[in-house]
Amino acid sequence: MAGNSFGGLFRLTTWGESHGPAIGCVVDGCPPRIPLSASDIQHWLDRRRPGQSRFTTQRNEPDTVEILSGVFEGETTGTPIGLAIQNVDQRSKDYGDIKDQFRPGHADYTYWVKYGIRDYRGGGRASARETAMRVAAGAIARKVLEALIGPAVTIRGALVQLGPHAIDRSRWDWAAVEENPFNCPDRQAVQAWATYLDGVRKQGSSAGALIEVVASGIPAGLGEPIYDKLDGDIARALMTINAVKGVEIGDGFAAASIPGDIAHDEMRMAGDQVRFLSNHAGGILGGISSGQDIVARFVVKATSSLPNPRRSVNQRGEEVDIRTTGRHDPCVGIRAVPVGEAMLAIVLADHLLRQRAQCGLS
Amino acid sequence: MAGNSFGGLFRLTTWGESHGPAIGCVVDGCPPRIPLSASDIQHWLDRRRPGQSRFTTQRNEPDTVEILSGVFEGETTGTPIGLAIQNVDQRSKDYGDIKDQFRPGHADYTYWVKYGIRDYRGGGRASARETAMRVAAGAIARKVLEALIGPAVTIRGALVQLGPHAIDRSRWDWAAVEENPFNCPDRQAVQAWATYLDGVRKQGSSAGALIEVVASGIPAGLGEPIYDKLDGDIARALMTINAVKGVEIGDGFAAASIPGDIAHDEMRMAGDQVRFLSNHAGGILGGISSGQDIVARFVVKATSSLPNPRRSVNQRGEEVDIRTTGRHDPCVGIRAVPVGEAMLAIVLADHLLRQRAQCGLS
Amino acid sequence: MAGNSFGGLFRLTTWGESHGPAIGCVVDGCPPRIPLSASDIQHWLDRRRPGQSRFTTQRNEPDTVEILSGVFEGETTGTPIGLAIQNVDQRSKDYGDIKDQFRPGHADYTYWVKYGIRDYRGGGRASARETAMRVAAGAIARKVLEALIGPAVTIRGALVQLGPHAIDRSRWDWAAVEENPFNCPDRQAVQAWATYLDGVRKQGSSAGALIEVVASGIPAGLGEPIYDKLDGDIARALMTINAVKGVEIGDGFAAASIPGDIAHDEMRMAGDQVRFLSNHAGGILGGISSGQDIVARFVVKATSSLPNPRRSVNQRGEEVDIRTTGRHDPCVGIRAVPVGEAMLAIVLADHLLRQRAQCGLS
Amino acid sequence: MAGNSFGGLFRLTTWGESHGPAIGCVVDGCPPRIPLSASDIQHWLDRRRPGQSRFTTQRNEPDTVEILSGVFEGETTGTPIGLAIQNVDQRSKDYGDIKDQFRPGHADYTYWVKYGIRDYRGGGRASARETAMRVAAGAIARKVLEALIGPAVTIRGALVQLGPHAIDRSRWDWAAVEENPFNCPDRQAVQAWATYLDGVRKQGSSAGALIEVVASGIPAGLGEPIYDKLDGDIARALMTINAVKGVEIGDGFAAASIPGDIAHDEMRMAGDQVRFLSNHAGGILGGISSGQDIVARFVVKATSSLPNPRRSVNQRGEEVDIRTTGRHDPCVGIRAVPVGEAMLAIVLADHLLRQRAQCGLS
Repeated sequence: MAGNSFGGLFRLTTWGESHGPAIGCVVDGCPPRIPLSASDIQHWLDRRRPGQSRFTTQRNEPDTVEILSGVFEGETTGTPIGLAIQNVDQRSKDYGDIKDQFRPGHADYTYWVKYGIRDYRGGGRASARETAMRVAAGAIARKVLEALIGPAVTIRGALVQLGPHAIDRSRWDWAAVEENPFNCPDRQAVQAWATYLDGVRKQGSSAGALIEVVASGIPAGLGEPIYDKLDGDIARALMTINAVKGVEIGDGFAAASIPGDIAHDEMRMAGDQVRFLSNHAGGILGGISSGQDIVARFVVKATSSLPNPRRSVNQRGEEVDIRTTGRHDPCVGIRAVPVGEAMLAIVLADHLLRQRAQCGLS
Repeated sequence: MAGNSFGGLFRLTTWGESHGPAIGCVVDGCPPRIPLSASDIQHWLDRRRPGQSRFTTQRNEPDTVEILSGVFEGETTGTPIGLAIQNVDQRSKDYGDIKDQFRPGHADYTYWVKYGIRDYRGGGRASARETAMRVAAGAIARKVLEALIGPAVTIRGALVQLGPHAIDRSRWDWAAVEENPFNCPDRQAVQAWATYLDGVRKQGSSAGALIEVVASGIPAGLGEPIYDKLDGDIARALMTINAVKGVEIGDGFAAASIPGDIAHDEMRMAGDQVRFLSNHAGGILGGISSGQDIVARFVVKATSSLPNPRRSVNQRGEEVDIRTTGRHDPCVGIRAVPVGEAMLAIVLADHLLRQRAQCGLS
Repeated sequence: MAGNSFGGLFRLTTWGESHGPAIGCVVDGCPPRIPLSASDIQHWLDRRRPGQSRFTTQRNEPDTVEILSGVFEGETTGTPIGLAIQNVDQRSKDYGDIKDQFRPGHADYTYWVKYGIRDYRGGGRASARETAMRVAAGAIARKVLEALIGPAVTIRGALVQLGPHAIDRSRWDWAAVEENPFNCPDRQAVQAWATYLDGVRKQGSSAGALIEVVASGIPAGLGEPIYDKLDGDIARALMTINAVKGVEIGDGFAAASIPGDIAHDEMRMAGDQVRFLSNHAGGILGGISSGQDIVARFVVKATSSLPNPRRSVNQRGEEVDIRTTGRHDPCVGIRAVPVGEAMLAIVLADHLLRQRAQCGLS
Repeated sequence: MAGNSFGGLFRLTTWGESHGPAIGCVVDGCPPRIPLSASDIQHWLDRRRPGQSRFTTQRNEPDTVEILSGVFEGETTGTPIGLAIQNVDQRSKDYGDIKDQFRPGHADYTYWVKYGIRDYRGGGRASARETAMRVAAGAIARKVLEALIGPAVTIRGALVQLGPHAIDRSRWDWAAVEENPFNCPDRQAVQAWATYLDGVRKQGSSAGALIEVVASGIPAGLGEPIYDKLDGDIARALMTINAVKGVEIGDGFAAASIPGDIAHDEMRMAGDQVRFLSNHAGGILGGISSGQDIVARFVVKATSSLPNPRRSVNQRGEEVDIRTTGRHDPCVGIRAVPVGEAMLAIVLADHLLRQRAQCGLS
């Protein structure tokens, strides 16, 4: 109820500012006796880590996670898991000149109006640095899903559009995602994207992006109608990621134009299993998982920290022109891929526990 | 935590099935001393009521709401407001032939897998009939916003696309919305929409739609980062409406293609007030309202109850062909407009109370 | 978060005032496929019903419960269960003369200060009439416990002290509880209690009481440390019953004087089962059930509606002498017994679901 | 919903085990612009610190708190406040011999049954060490109360009974509490308590205690009926403190014997203020604060870690005799005083924010 927690039974609470001493989180409700080590978490954090190519910020944060509680002799104990990452490359001086100014497209102005005070250094609490903790908690959520459902569960994501350039879905290859700096599943799109993003950066601009996340191997039955529908929680989970402006499931916004006679997934039997003949629904019907792949997409707007001057105002109500000189991602969507995956994993772990509670998933 | 509640401080809990004796809700947390009568609520319910044109279902529900508690001598008392609507036109016989079959695109299958039992009559709990209670609660939320902010607050909605036919936004006129059966703000689009929807219906098909909801007069400062961001809660609120497949704020999915140098709203002063020079953000920055219009859109897929046969299976694992013969909306998006408005009002009322709690909005 | 709900996964929300058209509740989170009929609930409501002896109020409320949703063909469906009881014997005129006065020991004054408005008729929302809905929800909770644990679960209560007169625990007989109008487990105490309470009533006074509730057959493992401990939730559950001023578990307040070498329950094996040699703990260790009987007591203060004049003030800040002429229980503790049982059942059902979620109770 | 959080709008989440690397908490929902430093918190932690007399454990924990987030330039920012204390005197070897045994009166057995794994070192998560974080959060809650109500608010506590020895309330002096190692408000009781506790310790036993906590200067109107009553939340808050077996408000359990004609607090006017002529209610009527002192008591059972052998069993189902050789408090009630104060402060801060939200406390 106080804003910095997500989830019901599998519950994440994060804390920390971009330039404070550390960031961290508490994961409460994790079932006991699940093998967990810091390296299990670090693996996913490293995917989100900046500074790995010229297309992400050069801020150099090793982002080494520590497990402070809730794990004993290599297994979870059912008690809250405290995690922390020390902040080691803060460079507060980068931000001094904009301390009383509001960057267009940032939360600077709204935090100021709401709270009357703000930690202006690096965006403070509004920094995307907070998403490191989502990735860490998502790593634990993956472990929960694997332990309770089985190793066949996968939660993957990819960038499917960079600026105006979309992939060709017929060339989708999950293996490609790991091979390029964009998390792009279409190998042939990579070169054009690199050229485009280099151009954008040279002009002092930035690019938006579209990300798709997919969960496979999730059983039917997860999701609690009416207001805790699985898709409702996914929408909230993804929309709260920094810079996200929209979320869709399955056909998503295309559904406006698809007539009813082809919009719905027909069913047949495959042995004793129900088989859907298509997946317009994105794996969710009536807010409950159907057993098909769960498919969600979210859009990330272009980075708002830009080197060219922008018209703005400051805390004293004076008009100013503002430039942001720190190190920033030209396309924050790239590093949002593991964050989207993590949020999907967290939602699914939470709903899996809820399903066990009420319906005793068998 | 049990699925049928929405909101934190202004909290809605609904109950009821399509063909049970009644549907109802409890609105808890409404501030005291707000004038409220049944007719205040009925006004908005009547907008959602079916049977008002040939483009909505002919099911004839008067949907007369009763206030059962929480109001004394014409004012709210701060205690929970119980509302109920008797179900009077249920025709259970319409549904008998599909009682053990799963309609494609419906929640039939997933409810069955999840619960092992379902009230098949009219969709049971999964029926869009539940949304009447959202509209009722939304009417109370509007009263709260008016009482605490002032009469200048408006929350309005319109259908901006029907099937493949979008409006021309340059012709947008809020007054037009009330004048046609589609809630369409573009008078010139109405005739084409009518022709299109008649055609769809004759073919035994149905149409999707896109709805836009706008809140004006909302002060800056509403929204609780990180996980209770205003846009996160709006996304969840709208995504939980029946048949919704996507939600976007401001530029929404178009933001993928908009470069950073034009994607962000610059600011200037207008007297002693901050003035934004555009509204790409849709009135929300960092999850907090900016004082601009809050603009959200959501997409509703085509109605899944169709008269033509569809391939499916039944509860015994047999393959069947299924036809839905009941009375259904050819485009459920039309009647989703007041529901979307209501959900937006509920989210805003809830966040307004939260803002008062923590920051003492003055 | 808005005050009129209790529980997490098994969640009760109540609404209604003493003299409104009806009272009701929503029970959300009940597992599906549990047999449930109105008569299952009515059975327990009848135990709480007034007017059954000269020792309870003569208000004649049949308190007939209706199930409005969530049950289909005799079984729960997993959707919210709506219940309502019509108010049929309201006699608003009884209360007119105290409409702007604050009865000592009542919530009149604090509701007025808090809300600036109150439904003065019969105590409005603060009336013990609300507890009928707790009993109704408790009946459903009992069904959940039976279905998920087995028929050996029992939840029983008794009055163990009336005014200054305590029972002799060596004569405790559960069968006696049903045989006398006091819910007294000590047959030899009944006559003295009757004489005492008649005397109290003749003097225009009233009596307090102590109630004990016991749950047997509850497995070890229920309760979520640290803040959702089983005893913490029981304490809250019982303390929220009207007129309750204290709650204790096991040895309770006597524990202050019991030295450590005898205060703790030693353990031995009985075959392959752990056997405790005593039950000082009242069945809860570290906030988690131990498998022993769960034993809680709560104290109910003397009825505050009294016929003799009491010094008070009114809403205009004038000093008044106030007499309450309505029909009231001389000892509200008697009818609090089934309410205490119900709250214990609700807490246990909620924690049973939580245990299934996180630890997969096997 | 996951057990390790307390509060709604002012919300505490704790993490950490007795012998892990650190313990910590997140306080979410604290209003912005409240002056706060580590020393404000350290002040109260030092009152709870062990090793300050021969009557508390000699475990030597400096318990130095760090503020990791949520405070900027000496003021709260409205973002979550992360706190941590490093564990520096753990001596894991003390506990090795009881690692697979269940100490009578401890949570050892129930954690084992519930989770199937436990951190046996020093009680792990069930250790009273967790209460340090309650005291830390309570220090912040005090700041909130002072900032929003005024400096006249005080929250104090005292030990009013040690073993069988109660204080004489006519000699109550708050100043005395700070002058003796028992937090005793009756100077004449101190010598007898010291003699008694020395004796208990020499016999290898331990003592229970009764604690009273009092909040003064709290305005009328705090508390949310029906289930979030102020007394219900206080009961839960205090009952979740380690070793607590009972909670009472105002007259508490004595209310069973007090007849109605003297049990209720009459009212008169004092100028334009309502004045109560007594405080049987302990400052709460109908779950809402009345403006009088809020008075609660809770009982702490005797320490369960004892040097004399006790009959028990181990994880393999073998009968064992068990002795606890670590350093332990002979009466844990003494150090529970600041913990009880802290929990009362947290409940009040939470309800103060809720009151502002719904009723706009003026």
